[in-house]
Amino acid sequence: MAQFLKVKSAEEALKIIRGLAPLPVEEIALDEACGRVLAESVVSPEPVPHFARSVMDGYAVRARDTFGASESLPALLEVVGEVSMGKAASGAVGSNQAVAIPTGGMLPDGADAVVMVEYTSPMDERTIEVFKPVAPGTHIIGPGEDVSLGERLFAGGWTLRPQDLGVLAALGIQTVRVRAVPRVAVLSTGDEVVPPSVSPVPPGKIRDINTMTLGGQVAEGGGRIGIRQLIPDDLDALVAACREAAVSHDVIMLSGGSSVGTRDFTLRILDAFPDAELLVHGVAVRPGKPTILARLGEKLFWGLPGQPMSALMICRTFVLPSLAVLQGIPAVAGLTSALAGHSCEATLEGPLPSVHGRTDLVPVALAAGERGLVAHPLFGKSAMISPLARSQGIVIIPEHVEGLDAGSPVTVHLFSPWNRPVRLS
Amino acid sequence: MAQFLKVKSAEEALKIIRGLAPLPVEEIALDEACGRVLAESVVSPEPVPHFARSVMDGYAVRARDTFGASESLPALLEVVGEVSMGKAASGAVGSNQAVAIPTGGMLPDGADAVVMVEYTSPMDERTIEVFKPVAPGTHIIGPGEDVSLGERLFAGGWTLRPQDLGVLAALGIQTVRVRAVPRVAVLSTGDEVVPPSVSPVPPGKIRDINTMTLGGQVAEGGGRIGIRQLIPDDLDALVAACREAAVSHDVIMLSGGSSVGTRDFTLRILDAFPDAELLVHGVAVRPGKPTILARLGEKLFWGLPGQPMSALMICRTFVLPSLAVLQGIPAVAGLTSALAGHSCEATLEGPLPSVHGRTDLVPVALAAGERGLVAHPLFGKSAMISPLARSQGIVIIPEHVEGLDAGSPVTVHLFSPWNRPVRLS
Repeated sequence: MAQFLKVKSAEEALKIIRGLAPLPVEEIALDEACGRVLAESVVSPEPVPHFARSVMDGYAVRARDTFGASESLPALLEVVGEVSMGKAASGAVGSNQAVAIPTGGMLPDGADAVVMVEYTSPMDERTIEVFKPVAPGTHIIGPGEDVSLGERLFAGGWTLRPQDLGVLAALGIQTVRVRAVPRVAVLSTGDEVVPPSVSPVPPGKIRDINTMTLGGQVAEGGGRIGIRQLIPDDLDALVAACREAAVSHDVIMLSGGSSVGTRDFTLRILDAFPDAELLVHGVAVRPGKPTILARLGEKLFWGLPGQPMSALMICRTFVLPSLAVLQGIPAVAGLTSALAGHSCEATLEGPLPSVHGRTDLVPVALAAGERGLVAHPLFGKSAMISPLARSQGIVIIPEHVEGLDAGSPVTVHLFSPWNRPVRLS
Repeated sequence: MAQFLKVKSAEEALKIIRGLAPLPVEEIALDEACGRVLAESVVSPEPVPHFARSVMDGYAVRARDTFGASESLPALLEVVGEVSMGKAASGAVGSNQAVAIPTGGMLPDGADAVVMVEYTSPMDERTIEVFKPVAPGTHIIGPGEDVSLGERLFAGGWTLRPQDLGVLAALGIQTVRVRAVPRVAVLSTGDEVVPPSVSPVPPGKIRDINTMTLGGQVAEGGGRIGIRQLIPDDLDALVAACREAAVSHDVIMLSGGSSVGTRDFTLRILDAFPDAELLVHGVAVRPGKPTILARLGEKLFWGLPGQPMSALMICRTFVLPSLAVLQGIPAVAGLTSALAGHSCEATLEGPLPSVHGRTDLVPVALAAGERGLVAHPLFGKSAMISPLARSQGIVIIPEHVEGLDAGSPVTVHLFSPWNRPVRLS
């Protein structure tokens, strides 16, 4: 097992993450494809619309029959029929003829434009006056004008949204080729940790937080939780659990085995896998320095700190980007953009000291200030769990920045669900 | 049935939405509570931690025994034991005694502080030198210091995140009281619309887009999709479908029945329900003017435009806020904040005309510009579906703004999933 004992910078670690190979391709039904990532580009197998359609209520006409028409000198057209919604247009529009047509109706043969009903007036039962000329193509969508045959609709790496599924459905596409979803085993360890169901808590013990917190975050990040388990802090038990997890998961995430005292313990777990390759052994990030990333053959292994807030921030900052890469989502450029997509701007409430060469992750609470949002750093002893409940996001101090002054503008990478307004404390 | 034939402003419609009653309360297991909304506040049934814990590796001591200690004149303490992780501390720390303790270990009786191992040195097998004094409480979390007994952790209306579930698990809370999830029937109609499985498309027909697009968006907005069905554009069939949907759903969403030609048709559906109450009959919004909101007894009825892009934007702007209110999420202040939580700032690429008294919803694509993101309005004939695929969000022109100039700073309310970086075209 190659060992890199040098701590990596956050950006070096992300570069390694970006180099991970994506998971295999699978073909799934459109109904199940929301949030999935296209493995290849999709081109249209059909033109849309299939037929020339009117985009207005009015009359299908030959444009040249309306040339020169005005309020004082309307064109007179013979109404020879009516188009019904959802039916093929019967008959054709001849010279100086018109056919009534609803919005969305199929343009009859011979017609090349639609006159809006507002610019017409019935003269008798079979004749209308047209007060305004129309150019050929007016108020019509031609075949393929919306989407042409063979047009590329989406590139590989695109995450399918509800509206994208609607477009694919409209084109008659019923399955898509996507990257597999990473199956993640969420393991937690620590001699002091007991399952949440234990009550009262025995002396010296605390209930497990990380399987719940990290499991939920992985699910939000596009992973599928398989095993979610608390393992005794015992080498044989941990090796057995990791071995079992490796059979049916793509990613094994173990929290609590990489704190200062037990970091070597995690390395000894990896030693039990002959094909283990250590990729990251420590990152210059606070908190989360003892983070470990390794390959176990085709599988990925993450060793996270045991402290819940530290584990949560490392999961958000490094593990979720790795799940994105496994899903074939295009490269994440840097640490702050690794979290991009759900953030807000705020003003820092107090100074945040940092050290050159180290990236700091600072949990913050948001409040309404006189000029927009104010971010309050949540300090406190690292073992505390209440900052988990109070924090709304993370402020990142990059490695080459030596702290931030009070009043600095900061980007807050939010924890809250995207479909909820930012909640102020 | 009371009929308000006056078109409402967007803000008037949102005010009506804010007044809707939330759904009933239910008690669910913590495992199933991610993304659910608390019906009432949660207070801590226990103090956290349960016991005084060390937050450092070192020695538990009586602080007063270290007073005056220095490099040149260290305090000498007798080591009388060792605390193991996850076990009750045995024995007590007496005068001039110390007990070895790991991070997270339970503080033994008699001790009131922890000296970091870095400030100690072993003198012999039973004695250490301490080079630095500590104050009482140093490197300790006292019982209840993190979370006190009875402390309010979350208010009613709070959407539970993964980390919140971790905090609740730590407190031994295994169920939570939350608002029911709105069950939504997604119905689509139109004589020209055929199911997506139909291939080739018969002349004059188009495949259904809205059940897929709106269904996915409702699911992202916290709703649970029940019936998702295409109904023939026939009054009896539509009334029967709505009647059936009303039995087992909280919200009936019908798209395609409220376009200019069929708006009265939707009203005739409502007439079939003796307890129908029309709340909104038209909004001063483009697109989406013919939007209808009604109460059918305890149920909510939404009539949306049939055009896919219009329906999508109205769903995002009005239907999702109504689902939020049903879930008991605190009042959404205004139209732009109704969408808040996932947006970005950009520069408008071209001018956007609007009219005083009307709110405009404009789909935009994003591109990287010299100074940040540029928002390109997606115009095009309203029947087009390709803007669905190309649009990344909505720019809102409020009713009292008469258009925006090219180069204006705008907020783009994003369609993309919160856990993905903004994708540039």
